[in-house]
Amino acid sequence: MKKFATLLVTLAVAAVTQSAFAQAKPEEAIKYRQAAFTVMAKHFHSLGAMAGGKAPFDAKAAAADADVLAVVAPLPFTAFGPGTDKGAKTEAKPGIWQDSAKFKQADDDMQAAMTKLVTAARSGSLDQIKATFGPTGKACKSCHDSFKEK
Amino acid sequence: MKKFATLLVTLAVAAVTQSAFAQAKPEEAIKYRQAAFTVMAKHFHSLGAMAGGKAPFDAKAAAADADVLAVVAPLPFTAFGPGTDKGAKTEAKPGIWQDSAKFKQADDDMQAAMTKLVTAARSGSLDQIKATFGPTGKACKSCHDSFKEK
Repeated sequence: MKKFATLLVTLAVAAVTQSAFAQAKPEEAIKYRQAAFTVMAKHFHSLGAMAGGKAPFDAKAAAADADVLAVVAPLPFTAFGPGTDKGAKTEAKPGIWQDSAKFKQADDDMQAAMTKLVTAARSGSLDQIKATFGPTGKACKSCHDSFKEK
Repeated sequence: MKKFATLLVTLAVAAVTQSAFAQAKPEEAIKYRQAAFTVMAKHFHSLGAMAGGKAPFDAKAAAADADVLAVVAPLPFTAFGPGTDKGAKTEAKPGIWQDSAKFKQADDDMQAAMTKLVTAARSGSLDQIKATFGPTGKACKSCHDSFKEK
């Protein structure tokens, strides 16, 4: 039920921001998606520090990270609309628009992995966080390798 | 109940990020809070466009904006710890650290106003959004006037 609720929020968020960015200037979309990635990375790395033993495990903190990630992880992907390949400094590669089906698949793969990490982090089980953090990081990296300038 | 759940998430998020930023470099905290403000502003302005009649009212989109704001609005304020007054380009005024009680009050006032806006936007009532958007914007502006470089 919680998973379903999260999915509903995710879909609703995707719906609003996609329509909202249809009217935005490219530089606004670029700034927004970079900002959402920054917030996402922070909370992802917080969980990573716990999973890797670099920070003490704190179940409450992990659940709070999960609550941020559940809402923020889908946001950057609503701001890669047509025409947002330039207009401000961006590390987005042209492949995002040239092979949009592959980019969408990479986004879907990451969201699926992230949903498992979010569920794990809300469960309070460090073992489950450890089990789901790696696959999520792999999904991030796979998309970066294809679609992000180094 | 929903309001209470939101409050719990808010408090939990504040707890994690405060401890998480104790170890971070000042430039990381500055980048993070600016990013969180960028995401927050986008969804706040989406509601503002509907409240002001510049965008058609879409109850689902408004509720999705609310879901983002409920989670993201508290985040910037977890990243103004000691020593984060410099280290990267920032518009944060020294008063944030010199009169931290006043800054905390300004944050509390904004969160209280934002909670009402979030509740309104989740309710599906444009009239309630209109009634709560202005006070929230006023709370943002009041804090900017005191604590943000122009």
